[in-house]
Amino acid sequence: MEVYFDNSATTCCYEAVKDIVVKTMMEDFGNPSAMHQKGVDAEQYVKKSARTLAQLLKVEEKEILFTSGGTESNNLALIGGAMANKRSGNHIITTAVEHAAVSQPVAFLREQGFEVTVLPVDKDGVVKLEALEKALRPDTILVSIMMVNNEVGAVMPVEKIGALIQEKSPKALYHVDGIQAFGKYRIYPKKWGIHLLSVSGHKIHGPKGVGFLYINSKAKVQPLILGGGQQNGMRSGTDNVPGIAGLGVAAELSYRDLEQKTEHLYQLKERLAEGLSGMEDVVINGMPLREGAPHIMCVSFLGIRSEVLLHTLEDRGIYVSAGSACSSHKRKPSATLSAMGMSNGQIENTVRFSFSEENTFEEIDYCLEVLKEVLPMLKRYARR
Amino acid sequence: MEVYFDNSATTCCYEAVKDIVVKTMMEDFGNPSAMHQKGVDAEQYVKKSARTLAQLLKVEEKEILFTSGGTESNNLALIGGAMANKRSGNHIITTAVEHAAVSQPVAFLREQGFEVTVLPVDKDGVVKLEALEKALRPDTILVSIMMVNNEVGAVMPVEKIGALIQEKSPKALYHVDGIQAFGKYRIYPKKWGIHLLSVSGHKIHGPKGVGFLYINSKAKVQPLILGGGQQNGMRSGTDNVPGIAGLGVAAELSYRDLEQKTEHLYQLKERLAEGLSGMEDVVINGMPLREGAPHIMCVSFLGIRSEVLLHTLEDRGIYVSAGSACSSHKRKPSATLSAMGMSNGQIENTVRFSFSEENTFEEIDYCLEVLKEVLPMLKRYARR
Repeated sequence: MEVYFDNSATTCCYEAVKDIVVKTMMEDFGNPSAMHQKGVDAEQYVKKSARTLAQLLKVEEKEILFTSGGTESNNLALIGGAMANKRSGNHIITTAVEHAAVSQPVAFLREQGFEVTVLPVDKDGVVKLEALEKALRPDTILVSIMMVNNEVGAVMPVEKIGALIQEKSPKALYHVDGIQAFGKYRIYPKKWGIHLLSVSGHKIHGPKGVGFLYINSKAKVQPLILGGGQQNGMRSGTDNVPGIAGLGVAAELSYRDLEQKTEHLYQLKERLAEGLSGMEDVVINGMPLREGAPHIMCVSFLGIRSEVLLHTLEDRGIYVSAGSACSSHKRKPSATLSAMGMSNGQIENTVRFSFSEENTFEEIDYCLEVLKEVLPMLKRYARR
Repeated sequence: MEVYFDNSATTCCYEAVKDIVVKTMMEDFGNPSAMHQKGVDAEQYVKKSARTLAQLLKVEEKEILFTSGGTESNNLALIGGAMANKRSGNHIITTAVEHAAVSQPVAFLREQGFEVTVLPVDKDGVVKLEALEKALRPDTILVSIMMVNNEVGAVMPVEKIGALIQEKSPKALYHVDGIQAFGKYRIYPKKWGIHLLSVSGHKIHGPKGVGFLYINSKAKVQPLILGGGQQNGMRSGTDNVPGIAGLGVAAELSYRDLEQKTEHLYQLKERLAEGLSGMEDVVINGMPLREGAPHIMCVSFLGIRSEVLLHTLEDRGIYVSAGSACSSHKRKPSATLSAMGMSNGQIENTVRFSFSEENTFEEIDYCLEVLKEVLPMLKRYARR
């Protein structure tokens, strides 16, 4: 049995995504910048995808900017947003649990002379609102907060945060890293006061190498990639038509029957939690199951190194992650788990299960069976 | 009959490219940063593609950096190259006929305080070596010159330029925009003294949204996109495995039987030139046919506006370009054609035919037939 529980790292594409990617690679393969019909045909795919995404977010088509993925979206929001607004102030706010695609651009901005406030989180990984309230200043130009944490599934109160920013720092740009949230939660940037929202294709059964940044039409952002002036000069380079078309289809399908899918994901989590509750030295981290993100479950198996467990599960065809895949090649304890107050020891024993709508109860049961079998063995081994 | 003569704008993907893209979207869809087998499997595609490209260029695998396309490659080479070396000097050299993906980053660097020398070209669009010789200084940190011009197919003496730079400005980074040259010419960066080489996937029957930058292991370049630290920290973001794998396959196939393909392309050009030679007021621009790039032919139809001709040909199923597609949405005369000394009037009458290995003599003959039929009509119309 093959069980893929690493859907927050990346997902398998939907069939319909594959179909439109193939069609735009082989038939409607034109360059949208070309003046002839082949160009116009290709451009239609780009426009249609922008329309789909705009409708889902209840924003305007021209506020959707396609990028090469979530990381570029975050870099553009942060570096492009800070650079375009540096005359208004010098202060940036973010949290201690951001993905490296946010924290690294923030570190770069700090080197460039920006002042950065990093907000703490509680034991569940949720940003502390009172800390944000204190941090917001008249010279704050940018606040960057993720909606769903990729490692523990903590859900941030992004709507409340938007209201706070409006009240205390109305000039600041509000960027939300929505990479783990989009496709799982309905997100309404206009209503919530979000100016910039980053989304990635391959986390929602879309293609790798594509994403988008919602940019409120009033927000000032400086482009990072210059050239032919595509996308109103905000992101040059031949539009990645297959990727963009695939992203549109993936988004549409992700939001279809969202409530049923969410319920299914929560039931998967609950089934896993129930099974784990009978095992010794197992800690489920983060928010209560139904309050955290439906697809992410962060579990510590005390006394067992996460890599060892990961490879043991892998031998039985079960794929999970130790820390987030995106930073797993670096050998340092997760900043997110540290910020939640977890000891380095526990961090080293922590594994992430992340689900997709395609996962089944049978897979959960198989995983539990395997865990029941291997955990005692691994513990004996660890104790020596 | 459908005749696609706009292959310098973009190409149809090879079947084998499509196959590997589908395989890595649907089966081997893992995240190369993941520690489990699905991650390792995905990483193999990335490594294999790097190996293929490195072998073709006779460079090392670790010198291949994957990007989201030619434009990002150029931006990284220029902005990343200049920023990383600004302590060594302040002077940048480029030419008057670069693609916007070079000239725009150069304009940005000029705004940042760098001094820029723009080299002139001759009537065929070839950079003047004596001008380069005069421009090279001890404080020159970057020279950026394209190998094949995208609008007229001029081929620059990149090897000689490399030798000149070594001699006069040995500290300078030498960047070659190889986007129209790769897959048509064998390129040897090490032998030719090239430190940075930009390549795009979709110009060689590979996927859109992917490209690479060859970076000599001794060259210092500052990353533009920060985050999870993929590709040795030089370009963060989940590797676009399908794009990267497709790019590798496209490169391999492009270089297979290269000499025969090149001969075929030159014969297509000659056949078109021969047919055009019998028509009035037709000027073939650029280098002599066999000296220019095999796939690009730039032709002025005096007295006929290029857009009118483009749309007339389009009605008969023939797709060509008026100026380069990459900048065709901007309504200003081509900088390249101006730099070659062409009048604005003639520029407005100029069309680009660009071929691929898949084009046939029958297509050329059909195109000539259509031209013979429509040109007199269009001219009568223009005279009114």
